[in-house]
Order: sequence, then C-alpha cells, then structure tokens
Amino acid sequence: MSDILQQHRTQGGTLHYCRHDSASTGTAMRYSLFLPPGNGPFPLLVWLSGLTCTEDNFTTKAGAYAAAARLGLAVLAPDTSPRGEEVANDAAYDLGQGASFYVDATQAPWAPHFQMERYVTSELLNVVARSFAVDLTRVGISGHSMGGHGALTLALRHPTLFKSVSAFSPICSPLRCAWGEKALGHYLGEDRSAWQAHDATWLIEQHTAAGHYDNILVDQGLADSFLEAQLKPELLEAACTAAGQPLTLRRHEGYDHSYFFISSFIADHLQWHADRLRA
Amino acid sequence: MSDILQQHRTQGGTLHYCRHDSASTGTAMRYSLFLPPGNGPFPLLVWLSGLTCTEDNFTTKAGAYAAAARLGLAVLAPDTSPRGEEVANDAAYDLGQGASFYVDATQAPWAPHFQMERYVTSELLNVVARSFAVDLTRVGISGHSMGGHGALTLALRHPTLFKSVSAFSPICSPLRCAWGEKALGHYLGEDRSAWQAHDATWLIEQHTAAGHYDNILVDQGLADSFLEAQLKPELLEAACTAAGQPLTLRRHEGYDHSYFFISSFIADHLQWHADRLRA
Repeated sequence: MSDILQQHRTQGGTLHYCRHDSASTGTAMRYSLFLPPGNGPFPLLVWLSGLTCTEDNFTTKAGAYAAAARLGLAVLAPDTSPRGEEVANDAAYDLGQGASFYVDATQAPWAPHFQMERYVTSELLNVVARSFAVDLTRVGISGHSMGGHGALTLALRHPTLFKSVSAFSPICSPLRCAWGEKALGHYLGEDRSAWQAHDATWLIEQHTAAGHYDNILVDQGLADSFLEAQLKPELLEAACTAAGQPLTLRRHEGYDHSYFFISSFIADHLQWHADRLRA
Repeated sequence: MSDILQQHRTQGGTLHYCRHDSASTGTAMRYSLFLPPGNGPFPLLVWLSGLTCTEDNFTTKAGAYAAAARLGLAVLAPDTSPRGEEVANDAAYDLGQGASFYVDATQAPWAPHFQMERYVTSELLNVVARSFAVDLTRVGISGHSMGGHGALTLALRHPTLFKSVSAFSPICSPLRCAWGEKALGHYLGEDRSAWQAHDATWLIEQHTAAGHYDNILVDQGLADSFLEAQLKPELLEAACTAAGQPLTLRRHEGYDHSYFFISSFIADHLQWHADRLRA
C-alpha cells in the first residue's frame, strides 16, 4: 500500500505525493500521481524524469495537469532511482542515486537496489492500481533525457504493457554516448553486448516491438546543449526508417534541455497518449 | 542595465533571468521576464511572490507562459526582497530576506536595503523597459499571499501606474494578522498608524484609488491552512462593499495555498489583465 504524504487539488483533479516500500528496490520509493476529475478508472501516463530529478521536478515544473484534466488522463511520476544511506551512490550527477537509467543492475555495488526496470514495469503499476482508480490495460509512457531513454526502451521491451510511447530529448543510443557508456558499464558490466537490449536504437534495429506502436513521438530542442554529444536523435531516426517503424521526430528551433521546453509541448504529448489510450 | 543570466525559449516566447544593481535596495537584484512572441512593446504583468520565494518560484511552477504567449502579455517576476551577507536578516521565514512585504522600511536594521515599494514601482519597471520591449503605459500587477498583499497595496497606492490588479490568497489586512503585525512592526516601527497605508483593507475603506479599478480579482482556496488566521478575505470583501469598489472574490472548494492552486487559475488572471491592458 502507498502512504499519501501530500494531497493537492489542482486543475479540477487531485495530485498525490506518495511513498511505499518497494520489494524491487528494497527501499522506500516516492511517486506523484495526478488523477483527473471524475471517478475513473483512468488511462495512465507514466512519466520518467531525467538525471538528478526526483518525483517532484515534472510534478511542479511541467505544467501538465491542465491538459491531463481536460483529457481525463492520470499521470504517474516515479522517482528516478532508489535512494538512502544504505543505497550505493556516486559523487557524479550521472551515476547512482538520481541516475538509474531504468535498468535492473547486475553489478556490484548497484545490483541490490538499482532494479528500476522491474520496479516501474511490474511493481509500481500494481502498487498504484491498488490504491487509485487507474486502468492498467491503458498505460502509456513518456519521459525526458535519461527518462526519455527509459520511456523508449521500456516501451520497446514491454510492448504488451504500454500502448503508447513518446519522449522529450531522449538519450537515443546509450551505447554511443558518454552518459550511456558510463552508466551501463557500471550497472550491467563491461560486456557491451549486455547493454544492447537497453539501447532504443538497437531495439528498433532488431524489430523489437515491431507492429506494436503505430507511431512514436519525439520532441527535441535544437538549442539543447546535449544534443550532439549525448542525445543523437538522428540515430533513432535512421533506425526507424530502416525498420519501417513510424516516428514523428519534431525538431524545435531555439529550445533547450530544460523544463521550459517540456512545458511548451507537454500538452501535445498528453493528447498523443490520450488519442491512443482512450480509443 | 540588466545582465541576462539565462535565456530560455518557451511557449513560443522567451524567458529571461536577469540581474541588475539596484539603487533602491543598494544590492544586486534578480528578476525573471517572459516576453511573448512578436516585437512588442508588450503590456506587462508584474507578479509579486510570497514568503520564502525568489524570482524562480512563479517562473518555474505557475505554468503561466502558455496563456501569456497566447494573450501577448509580458510577465515580470522580481525577487521578494534584497539579499546578501550585508543585508539584514532574521532566522524566521516571515521576516527579512524573502519576506519584504513590499514596503520601504523606516526602521533599523532594515531601512538601508529593504526599499521594495520604491524598487518595484519606480526603479524596476524602468530598468526592464531600458532592456526589453515592454509598454509602461500598460502595466498590471498580481501576486500571491505576501505578494498578493503587495499587489493590492501597490495598486491602491499607485493607481496611475497600474491599470489592473488581481491577487491569489492575499494577506488582506496586515494590521489584523500575525504575519503583518510582525513584519510591519519591524519594518515601519511600533506606531500602528504608520502601517495603515500598507493595509489593502484600510486603503479601500479610505477610498484610495476610488474609480481607478473597474474591478479587482481575488482567488482564494478554501482548504488554505492560512485562510482564517492570516489572509481574511472577508475583511477585504466587507471594505469593498462599503466603499463601492467592485471585487470579484472567488472561493474555491478544496484548493490550498500552494502553486498547484495558482497554476489552476493563473490563466484566468492573465486574461483579466489582458482584457484591461490591451484595451
């Protein structure tokens, strides 16, 4: 069960901040959940945040709930990793707490708690559904940056769980950027072949989830300082073209990597998911 | 002149974080300024934030800029006080840095830097207009809590400067609540008669600014934990009725004192100001 830490009325719906004990991570975990007006059960969008974020960043900064209320979508924002003094960590912002990359770690010292794929795809959704009126047959996934990588890879790896997928500024190929090489090396070990199944571009190339998603929406700012070295949407674009996977990749002049970019286009993403989850 | 510290494209417009040296406060001051798409000059809404806030709270949490972009409104959010090691402060959250109450302090140790009325109403607007395409003949003012008090009192005290006024959850009578008594006592001295001209309810009762504002918009959440002891909109309501000042006071069931309340109704306030500033 979840403990409700805070509850706020907003946009005619209700926002909850919750905590629960996770069997996957062996820690307490936090999430926020917005429920639109009405009684549900509501289709649910899972939002995965990026490096350094908690469950609070999207919740306070994205400006998502006006559109979610209008569209009748519930929105779930988990934390980005397990946390606590007993949990392995690293001084760098791009490894350890706040930087899970949404994989199940196999390596020490990460494996005991960094089990975020398992946590998000099997435990958390059921935890939420036990306390709130969400419909687990209508779940979409989105996210930003490291969380965009999480959204794409979890959608491609669990295509019967998620019915719709989108991302903002995702890390498109962790095998081919410094953020991804560092994190996957630590969490999954030095054998790069173990990383492939967590690389969205590789998964598309292998026709994983082929036929499951009618289209994938990706928004990318062209003034994003991480675009060329870390994000590389052109790799995802080429893979989708080669594999015949429809992709709607929108490049936005002048927009950067911040929540000011996300808030500008989040309503389009909510509409994208609502169109697919309410059908 | 202002130094631009950060610039973000958002909602089709541009958000700036700026710093400048203030003659009023004798310190560096920060503000955020959103400019909508187009060339201007744009009508301008000044937003005054509440206790503990900086220029960043409204900017990141209010979700205001989609509506501001659509309506062609510039939005200016100053910091809530002077800051710095050389500036007087207090350990409490409701006095000193982050808690200016938007008055010009006359008492030690506050007077040298806490000159926020002068800062907002004469210096800041001109500083902004020197660097950005805003129209100082079309300026409105709004704010939240302590900043709602600031918006109401500055509008009533400077009715030729501001053309429109609204507030969220304002402190309606600092003479009659603990927050106001503490702050005005420190900033203006023990003689309560010096406080009156900074009490929105008293100013209405004195017919200050009578005939200048066709209406005043106030939104108040009924689940606001500060409602009864600190905010007291019923005092403002009674004064407006007695003075013949039109007031649109909306009470919202279930909403609290947080930015989740502000973000739910900020578009209505922007429309309110746009209707009056674009005419």
